[in-house]
Amino acid sequence: MTGHTTPTIPAILADYRPAIDAALKDALDRPGQAYRVLRYAMGWESADGEPISAQTGKAVRPSLCLLACEMVGGNATSALPAAVSLELIHNFSLIHDDIQDRDESRHGRPSVWKTWDEAKALDAGNTMRVEADLAVQRLTAVGVQVATAVEVATVINEVFLEVVQGQYLDVSFEQRRDVGLSDYFQMISMKTGALIRTSLMLGAMLGEAEPQTVRAFTEFGRALGAVFQITDDVLGIWGDEESTGKPVGSDIRRKKKSLPILFAMSKSRGTALRRMREIYAQDSVSGPDVAAVLEIMDDLETRRYAGAVADRHRGEALDALSAAELEPEILKSAEEIAQFLLTRSF
Amino acid sequence: MTGHTTPTIPAILADYRPAIDAALKDALDRPGQAYRVLRYAMGWESADGEPISAQTGKAVRPSLCLLACEMVGGNATSALPAAVSLELIHNFSLIHDDIQDRDESRHGRPSVWKTWDEAKALDAGNTMRVEADLAVQRLTAVGVQVATAVEVATVINEVFLEVVQGQYLDVSFEQRRDVGLSDYFQMISMKTGALIRTSLMLGAMLGEAEPQTVRAFTEFGRALGAVFQITDDVLGIWGDEESTGKPVGSDIRRKKKSLPILFAMSKSRGTALRRMREIYAQDSVSGPDVAAVLEIMDDLETRRYAGAVADRHRGEALDALSAAELEPEILKSAEEIAQFLLTRSF
Repeated sequence: MTGHTTPTIPAILADYRPAIDAALKDALDRPGQAYRVLRYAMGWESADGEPISAQTGKAVRPSLCLLACEMVGGNATSALPAAVSLELIHNFSLIHDDIQDRDESRHGRPSVWKTWDEAKALDAGNTMRVEADLAVQRLTAVGVQVATAVEVATVINEVFLEVVQGQYLDVSFEQRRDVGLSDYFQMISMKTGALIRTSLMLGAMLGEAEPQTVRAFTEFGRALGAVFQITDDVLGIWGDEESTGKPVGSDIRRKKKSLPILFAMSKSRGTALRRMREIYAQDSVSGPDVAAVLEIMDDLETRRYAGAVADRHRGEALDALSAAELEPEILKSAEEIAQFLLTRSF
Repeated sequence: MTGHTTPTIPAILADYRPAIDAALKDALDRPGQAYRVLRYAMGWESADGEPISAQTGKAVRPSLCLLACEMVGGNATSALPAAVSLELIHNFSLIHDDIQDRDESRHGRPSVWKTWDEAKALDAGNTMRVEADLAVQRLTAVGVQVATAVEVATVINEVFLEVVQGQYLDVSFEQRRDVGLSDYFQMISMKTGALIRTSLMLGAMLGEAEPQTVRAFTEFGRALGAVFQITDDVLGIWGDEESTGKPVGSDIRRKKKSLPILFAMSKSRGTALRRMREIYAQDSVSGPDVAAVLEIMDDLETRRYAGAVADRHRGEALDALSAAELEPEILKSAEEIAQFLLTRSF
């Protein structure tokens, strides 16, 4: 499932990439050292400001936004500023997240705070966030009505608030021992799901879909967000290092409270439960501990459980779209996207 | 000049305080732990969420915003959402600033990161920033036209960017040895001046002043910002502990590159210069070192220099207003404000 195939993004999403990259580069093409930091963070430049071709993000959010716009019959150009804004918010959150989690690498390169320092990374993140707002202001320049642009700005503010509060919850969980599956789902729907949901929602809105269709895409996005995250969690444990850039079991080593871990915690009994508790009470998790947790997870068929939950959300995503009365061909694209988010290996 | 008088804010500003406080409290009256952190930061609650009456900020920015609105004949209510937004941005920057500078106290209480942790303080600051945006969105509810509200949102975004970039410069200065007075003025006009300038500018704009008058208030604000900051720098060195909450010489101890220090650095010669360089090359500055720097500053009449620079900006501020053709009575208020910002002892 996670074999050594080269990671590929389906054409239906990848087609939007050049337009998105150009608009992102345009947004961050400003003088000043803070912007150099941002171009580093995006994977376009070395720390010295030399152009490089590093691994970049997958641009899932902006691509989904443009796709949703075209799925409802709109012109993707109208949604581009919103797509850019969402991708910048996503990258803002990665920069601040890495500070919070003391993560030393991102996309296979030293993280921003590791390359510069925390104080500069903090400001760089804030600058990225401002550019996200400024991007939204370009909506009227591509022909979007002022009232719609104002609504989009409100939605983007609100999603930003959700992301930040999700991060806050995530950080709180690290200090709590009583985090359950429902806490996890609440946190992750804010921290990760919100941006994906909003990408689809705004794409449909800027494609001038009817309110009922916008709602259908919002629900589609909500469910897709869950698929995306659960797959992320699965890859964080069983992902192939070549594809993900992280060794097998890396989320166990990091004591991340992700779905497979919370599931194994809640389902293990007796010796296994005691072993799990012992391991997670330690300051750091060693190689043999990682192997022990993986074995407990195997016994509980944790990977199958996570896959089943993700697949249920995939089904919900497609059900949600039925309210939108889309052409069969468009529904097929939706199925393709949902399938990609479920089975991706990177 | 900085004697043991009780710090008072002139009535012309203090009169707006109840309305501002009520609107601020309303903005941060939301469920969730992140908001508890914000209410702590504002000085309204203890870390446990109990109501307290701690020292709070002076609310200079929102008060100036409402005052400017009324000075041009507007109704302060129309400017209140913008005033709240600016005060929230100011408080956002304090929270992130304290993380960056590792400042352990703020307004005489443990700073946010010290009370919780860095990760939570980072998110709390981001949440404060979102609330600043949401506050602007309430402009249309108080009768402001959508187009004006959009313009205000743009201005607030841009000022936020200036503040963040000013913070970035400030952080960079700490690692540089060649920071001169002009670097300092550039940094401070962004980090501190921008919000004060924008407070006056938006107040005039929301008071529906003519463009020429808005420009006059912008220049007035720009010069007032300089007065405000230089006075801050003077208080950071010679301020009275009872009024400022900080011991005499505290900015020397912190090696802060403020105006008096940069002036003394650039003007001292021979033994004094060598002594200054020695002291600033050390990791920490001791009591006798603080006394030595104070003596060098005295010899160079540094305090008089800073006072003269601030007073020059006070004059520029009032000159700028002459373009606005205001009633003599209104001009008198402007003079009172400028004088207060120059001579305040807290």
